Amino acid sequence: MTSIAPLDWLKSNSEESLNELKELLRIPSVSTQPARKKDVQRCAESVSQLLTRFGLEKVTIHPTKLHPVVTAEWCHQPNAPTILLYGHYDVQPETPVELWNTPPFEPTIIGGQIIARGVSDNKGMIFAHIKAIQAWLESTGSLPVNVKVIIEGEEEIGSPNLIPFVEANQKLLEADMCLISDNPMFAKDTPSVCTSLRGLGYMEIEATGANSDLHSGQHGGTAPNPIHALASILTQLKDQNNRITIPGFYDNVARLSSAQKKAFSQLPYSTDKYKEQLGVSDLWCETDYSPLECMWTRPTLDCNGIFGGYTDEGAKTVIPAKASMKVSMRLVDDQDPVTIMKEAKSYIHKLCPSGITLSIQDDFGYSNPASTDPAHPAVQAALKALKDTFGKNALLQGEGGSIPIVSELKRILGIDTVLIGMNLPEDKIHAPNEQLSLDNFQKGMETSVRFWENIGMIPD
Amino acid sequence: MTSIAPLDWLKSNSEESLNELKELLRIPSVSTQPARKKDVQRCAESVSQLLTRFGLEKVTIHPTKLHPVVTAEWCHQPNAPTILLYGHYDVQPETPVELWNTPPFEPTIIGGQIIARGVSDNKGMIFAHIKAIQAWLESTGSLPVNVKVIIEGEEEIGSPNLIPFVEANQKLLEADMCLISDNPMFAKDTPSVCTSLRGLGYMEIEATGANSDLHSGQHGGTAPNPIHALASILTQLKDQNNRITIPGFYDNVARLSSAQKKAFSQLPYSTDKYKEQLGVSDLWCETDYSPLECMWTRPTLDCNGIFGGYTDEGAKTVIPAKASMKVSMRLVDDQDPVTIMKEAKSYIHKLCPSGITLSIQDDFGYSNPASTDPAHPAVQAALKALKDTFGKNALLQGEGGSIPIVSELKRILGIDTVLIGMNLPEDKIHAPNEQLSLDNFQKGMETSVRFWENIGMIPD
Repeated sequence: MTSIAPLDWLKSNSEESLNELKELLRIPSVSTQPARKKDVQRCAESVSQLLTRFGLEKVTIHPTKLHPVVTAEWCHQPNAPTILLYGHYDVQPETPVELWNTPPFEPTIIGGQIIARGVSDNKGMIFAHIKAIQAWLESTGSLPVNVKVIIEGEEEIGSPNLIPFVEANQKLLEADMCLISDNPMFAKDTPSVCTSLRGLGYMEIEATGANSDLHSGQHGGTAPNPIHALASILTQLKDQNNRITIPGFYDNVARLSSAQKKAFSQLPYSTDKYKEQLGVSDLWCETDYSPLECMWTRPTLDCNGIFGGYTDEGAKTVIPAKASMKVSMRLVDDQDPVTIMKEAKSYIHKLCPSGITLSIQDDFGYSNPASTDPAHPAVQAALKALKDTFGKNALLQGEGGSIPIVSELKRILGIDTVLIGMNLPEDKIHAPNEQLSLDNFQKGMETSVRFWENIGMIPD
Repeated sequence: MTSIAPLDWLKSNSEESLNELKELLRIPSVSTQPARKKDVQRCAESVSQLLTRFGLEKVTIHPTKLHPVVTAEWCHQPNAPTILLYGHYDVQPETPVELWNTPPFEPTIIGGQIIARGVSDNKGMIFAHIKAIQAWLESTGSLPVNVKVIIEGEEEIGSPNLIPFVEANQKLLEADMCLISDNPMFAKDTPSVCTSLRGLGYMEIEATGANSDLHSGQHGGTAPNPIHALASILTQLKDQNNRITIPGFYDNVARLSSAQKKAFSQLPYSTDKYKEQLGVSDLWCETDYSPLECMWTRPTLDCNGIFGGYTDEGAKTVIPAKASMKVSMRLVDDQDPVTIMKEAKSYIHKLCPSGITLSIQDDFGYSNPASTDPAHPAVQAALKALKDTFGKNALLQGEGGSIPIVSELKRILGIDTVLIGMNLPEDKIHAPNEQLSLDNFQKGMETSVRFWENIGMIPD
């Protein structure tokens, strides 16, 4: 195998790799918080410096209306295909910060885990792929494929400026297929390639009752309470079978075929183990669907945050003037986020009790559901790279999360995406104590070295 | 009238009165917040200094398990009755502080209003009564009655240590009746005496789903969501008619007689004006009851605060591990808070969806409902004092709020309480921009001067 040289290079440079990743993790590039705008910019600059150091060319920081996009390329194999590598350098907020055991932006190694906000989602993953490029270039002077890199800073807020950027830079980004690692592998020691993603719609609903907070003794029993209004709306959005009640919501959701159901049931998955992992006695699955079916093939709706009234220690007897909640929906198949969000808003206004006024904000970006044919050569190249790295057959799987860019790349550039899972489902992404094992970080770089080789063998 | 001298004295000392009140308002004596414990203590010391300066005797600060009780007396009229004056020097939290137009603990005069946390509830009111005592003592050398004063620092947290204090100090507090001004008058220019109060029960409910915050893409559709659980519980606690669904909740609630209904309907009250004052298009009254009936004679339940998940700016796709809400109930007639709270907790546990665990905290203190016979001499003395001060007949009214001490004083000391309203319903107590008009502050002191005189004429 020609990939021995870059793999050896990676092994002898593993300490340097970890230190470079740590530097990236120290930057609190939280894209949703305006106060962190400069940190996001600083992170884009660090990424571009790494790309340059690793041997990529035409490294460019493109400003957008909010956070910059970084691009780079290495295109010197006229007979090999061109892969567009996508990743994001922005991260989720670190709240609730008091639940972290170590500082979220000071990467700490404990028990073989790198612990830091963004280490799994997505800094560690994207770093592994670009480090593998360096391994090829440093050890052999060349790369088996042509690679274009695009790393954005708005994934965690729905990529509002990425799509216009792709639209405006089709020539720059022209490629045969896309590679993304922004999703976990199926399980520890069970490598997998993901071929479907759910879409996303997100809204914030603010309910207003009286024009001022009120004393709940003097006005209790007469004054409309915006917390009760939100609770009533939220409760009515799902029925007893955990089905969403928004009119027309399931119109473009495909029925699972019995063949698909059978394939799902044969995956090495234990519902009891999943419940144990979450620490819950029961799951909230849609009636007639298994947990994997619910997570990968069924749409859903969750309140992601709620706030109103007095929430500090102790008792305060207040009827608040306002309360608000954040609600997201995960979409599948042919559900169109724009249509669904419009229907949802209209329905929520209808559910609002009289005496309360609602204001619904939905400018958080959205994401279409997406899928790739398992027979696609990039999927096959990824399965082989994983098998050779982990010494086990890799599975095909779906994914409940959303990567907005996937369906948009298909629409704008006409290319399919292969999604290689590199972290683990238990890595607490979006949560306190986000982690990535040192082992998976190392195997991620090795898998990438092999993927670049495997995909390079496919004639352009 | 003998009261001309103290009234004149008050007029010529009005600037000093206002400055003394302002000093008291500058102390952030928020009893529910452990971080403010020293401020609460400092406020007790300020109150005791005022009582001494105003001519009261045996001024004492009594430590308790939490915040101190201040007592004092002037008892040199062997043939007149003894009045126990009760008030509290603690205040509600100033949150949400961003909605205040002026600093909550820097009293500011705008448009004839004193604006500060606690000015209406209860510092301004209790100050008016003790200042009226000074007015009598300074201008005549004597007081027409015997007065005992008890001012506590835990009213806003349900007076947990006051009842044991009263139990242990029955001789010290022995009196013929109690006077409290911790409630608003019926309306601007409509003075009133209150003869009934609702009781209070308060709890905090914490719901737990998974053992960590989860990514709502990866786990949405399977993981139990504690926000949805709280919303569902809250929604089920009231039915479509705004009746509380806790089993047995209405067992000890008396039916309003047609005579009472008629009396309510004749009060100078406009539902439209009330809606306009709150700025709402509809009220949430219990079916078949008017707003006044709901506020004064019917029990109710309100969520006073809810918190869970991501509540900062922007979007975060999380299923939180925990969410919590604060729920209070207002009770009437023979509803026993202890029994009701027990029933409520048991019922809430039954409403909890599977996959979620609940923890319910209820050590916030509670309050029994209470009422006083309108024919009581103290009520009559108060009505006359208000009429002479405002130049208008004073009404009898109920009150939706709770003053825990009232039913306890009846139980322990065997005395009834007269409640003289001094501030206005629109004074935003418990809310941002709490206020008290300079006019009502002045009239409060005048009313008190006259009340001391009127009640002193009743033979002991």
